[in-house]
Amino acid sequence: MRRTYPARGRGMICRMDETAREYALALDDADPLAGFAAEFVPAPGVLYLDGNSLGRLPRSTGGRVAEVVADEWGGGLVRSWSTWISLARRIGDLIGTSLLGARPGEVVVADSTSVNLYKLAWAAVSARPGRSVVLSTPDEFPTDRYVLQGLCAARGLTLRDLPADIDAGVSTESVVEALDRSVAVVVLSHVAYRSGALLDLPAITAAAHEAGALVLWDLSHSGGSVPVGLAAAAADLAVGCTYKYLNGGPGSPAFGYVNARLIPQLAQPIQGWMGASDVFLMGLEYVPADSIRRFLSGTPPIVGMLAMRDTVAMIEEAGIAAVRAKSVALTEFAVALADEWLTPLGVTLASPRDPERRGGHITLSHPAMREVTALLWQRDVIPDYRDPDGLRVGLSPLSTSFEEVCAGMAAVRDALGELTHD
Amino acid sequence: MRRTYPARGRGMICRMDETAREYALALDDADPLAGFAAEFVPAPGVLYLDGNSLGRLPRSTGGRVAEVVADEWGGGLVRSWSTWISLARRIGDLIGTSLLGARPGEVVVADSTSVNLYKLAWAAVSARPGRSVVLSTPDEFPTDRYVLQGLCAARGLTLRDLPADIDAGVSTESVVEALDRSVAVVVLSHVAYRSGALLDLPAITAAAHEAGALVLWDLSHSGGSVPVGLAAAAADLAVGCTYKYLNGGPGSPAFGYVNARLIPQLAQPIQGWMGASDVFLMGLEYVPADSIRRFLSGTPPIVGMLAMRDTVAMIEEAGIAAVRAKSVALTEFAVALADEWLTPLGVTLASPRDPERRGGHITLSHPAMREVTALLWQRDVIPDYRDPDGLRVGLSPLSTSFEEVCAGMAAVRDALGELTHD
Repeated sequence: MRRTYPARGRGMICRMDETAREYALALDDADPLAGFAAEFVPAPGVLYLDGNSLGRLPRSTGGRVAEVVADEWGGGLVRSWSTWISLARRIGDLIGTSLLGARPGEVVVADSTSVNLYKLAWAAVSARPGRSVVLSTPDEFPTDRYVLQGLCAARGLTLRDLPADIDAGVSTESVVEALDRSVAVVVLSHVAYRSGALLDLPAITAAAHEAGALVLWDLSHSGGSVPVGLAAAAADLAVGCTYKYLNGGPGSPAFGYVNARLIPQLAQPIQGWMGASDVFLMGLEYVPADSIRRFLSGTPPIVGMLAMRDTVAMIEEAGIAAVRAKSVALTEFAVALADEWLTPLGVTLASPRDPERRGGHITLSHPAMREVTALLWQRDVIPDYRDPDGLRVGLSPLSTSFEEVCAGMAAVRDALGELTHD
Repeated sequence: MRRTYPARGRGMICRMDETAREYALALDDADPLAGFAAEFVPAPGVLYLDGNSLGRLPRSTGGRVAEVVADEWGGGLVRSWSTWISLARRIGDLIGTSLLGARPGEVVVADSTSVNLYKLAWAAVSARPGRSVVLSTPDEFPTDRYVLQGLCAARGLTLRDLPADIDAGVSTESVVEALDRSVAVVVLSHVAYRSGALLDLPAITAAAHEAGALVLWDLSHSGGSVPVGLAAAAADLAVGCTYKYLNGGPGSPAFGYVNARLIPQLAQPIQGWMGASDVFLMGLEYVPADSIRRFLSGTPPIVGMLAMRDTVAMIEEAGIAAVRAKSVALTEFAVALADEWLTPLGVTLASPRDPERRGGHITLSHPAMREVTALLWQRDVIPDYRDPDGLRVGLSPLSTSFEEVCAGMAAVRDALGELTHD
C-alpha cells in the first residue's frame, strides 16, 4: 500500500507542543520518502532549516570524493581525463532528465550560476539583435540582477523591471503586459529566492514566445524540489545551482540548459577550448561544438562536480513527483505551525499561501527576525535571514523530517517570544 | 652544507643506461628538494612526465578534503560560510606572495582560467577605449586565443598576431615592433604551452607600458615553477591555472591577479554578487567591492579550492628560487639525455636550449611522436603529445626525481627505436 501524508484538519495542530509533535511523527510515519533522511550525514543537535541555501552532506559523498581523489587523480593521473572529459555532460543529462524534464544533450554542468547566467543571457540578447530590453524583476536574486545590469550596460540595452510583489511573486499577467516587440529576453527565477513564489513557467514561456522573446529561467530554488518540465514547456534557456536541493557541496558548479532547437543558433561569449568542436585539435580558429558542449569554456571542475551525483540519484529513485509531494507537505505543515504559533506573535507569511504557487521554502516576516535568526543560530537552529525582515525556512524534501520542522518552528516561536517580551 | 646539483661535464652522460642512471642518482642525492617527492601519493609503476598537465596528488590532500567535507560541510553546514567566504582571497594571497611576487590583496582564486582570462581581457580593453587591437600570438594556448577571438568579435576589435616561432617563443623585439598606439592589451603566456619558451615578462611589460598598453599574462605554465615577479615588473594583469604545478586537482579553479593600482580603475563583465561591495546587503544596484574581490562573480568553489594549498605550502617551504633551480636542473638533464639518446634517432629539441629562456617543460619533435606517445602510455610512461609532432616532457620540480627523468627518457628512446625500426 502506498503511503501518503495524512490530511490536516483544522485543529489537528494545536498550541500544545506535544500534540504538534505527535502529528509530526504521524506525518513522518506516513512519509514514503522518510527513509532517505538516513542517507545524509547527521549533524547532531542541529535543526537544519536551510537546505535551500546549502544542502546537507549525503553519506555516500565523502567516500566517493575520497575514492576519486585517491584512485582517479592520485593513481590514474592525467589518464583519467578519458573519463572526466564527459562528466559535465553525463551529470548534466542525469539532472536534465531526472529533475528538469529536459532531453538528453540539453543540460551541462559548468562554472557558477552567475557565469552561466551571463553566458546564456548574452547568448539570448545576441540572438535577438533588433531588441533592446531585458525584462526581469527587482525581486530577482541579486546576482542575477547584477549580472543583467552589467550585461545591459555593456550592450546598450535596458533592464526593464516587472512590478514586484515580493510575497506573491511575478504574475503571468504582469509579464504579458510588459512584453512587447522590444523585449529580447525575460529572466526570472522559477521559484523566488525570498518568498518561494513558484511562477507559471509554461504560461510565461508561451507568452514570451508569442512576443518573439526568449526566456532564461533561474532554477536555483526549484531544481530538485519542484518538477520543472522544460521540454514540455518548450523552454528556451535555464541555469541553476547545485548546492541547494542537489546537495553538491559548497560552491559546487552550476548547470545550464539550452533547448536542442536553439543550440545551433546560439553563440556564447567565453569561447574556451572545452566548447570547441574538437577540444584536442587545438587549431588556430575557434569552431564551436555542435552540441550543448559549446556552452562550456574552461576545464571542468571534476572534484567539485562529484557530490551532486548522490542526491540526483536519490531524487531519481524517489521520483521528482514524490519529492514535490513531500515538499508541499513539509511547507504546508510549516505554514500550519506558523499560523498557530507565530501569527499571534505578529508574524506574517511572506510567501504564497497556495502550495501550488509555492516552492520548497517559506518566508516569515516580523521586525525582529534578524535578531531571532541570530539567537536561533546560537542554539543550533539554522534557518536563513533575508532582508528586510524575513526568516526563511528551507525544507529540503529528502533530508528533512516533519519532526525537525516541528521542533524548528517551536524554536522560532520561543526565540521570538523571548526577544519580544524582554 | 647546502647541497647543489653537480655540474654536468661533457661525457658524463653516455649512451650506456647504467652510466646515465648513476648520474641521475647522483643528482637526486645532491637535490636539496629530493625529500618533497615523498609528500606525493605514489603511482606505482608509472613514470610521470606530465606534471605540467595535471600535477600529482599530495599525500596530505585526500585527508584534508575528507575533513572539510565531513566537518565543515557535513557538520558545520551553512554556518561554515563564515570561514569559506574569504578562502578565495586567502589562498590567492598565499599564491600571490609565495609564488608570483605579488602583494597581498592582488590575487584571488576563482572560476576557470578561460573565464578569468575573459574577464580580465574584457576589463583591459574597456580601460583603453580608443584602442582597437589585442596583440597575441598564433602559438598562444588555444583557449586563450579562442577567448580573445570571441572578445574581439563582440567588441569590434582586431586580434593582431605577433610573428610566431613555435620553438623559440615570442621575442621582446617582436613585441616592441608590433606595439603602437592602437594596441589596448597584449596577451601572452609567460611560459609557452608547447615549447616551454620563457618570455621576458619585465621587458615586455615595460615596452607595453611605454606604448600605453596593458599586458595580461597567462601564468599557467610558470606559476609554481618559475619565479614571476609581478610586483617588481609592475605587471598589470595575470591569470593562471592551479592544476599543473600547484597540484590543485582536475579542473581546480584558476587564479587572477590585478595590480593594486589598477583595481579601482577596472570593471569586469560578470557582475555577480561575490564581487559586490557588501555581498549580503543584496541591494538593488551592483556596487563593486573596492578590493580584488570585485573580480569575483559567483559562489566560490570551496571543495575544488582545497587541494592547491598543500603544494603552495610546500613551494613556500622550499622557496620558489630553489624550485626554479631544480626545475632548470631537471630540464637540463632531460635535454642532455635527449642529445645523447634521441638526436641520433632524428629527434630535435623544440624548446629553447638556453635554460634561462625555458620554463619547466621541454618538447621533443619527431614525425613519429604521436605513435610514440601512445606506445609509452601503454607502458605507463606518461608524457604529453602536442601537435604537430611534439612529445612534451613536463617535470614538476617537487614531485619528479632525476632517476624518473632518466628512466622516462630511456623509455622514449626505446619506444621511438621500436617504432622507427619496424
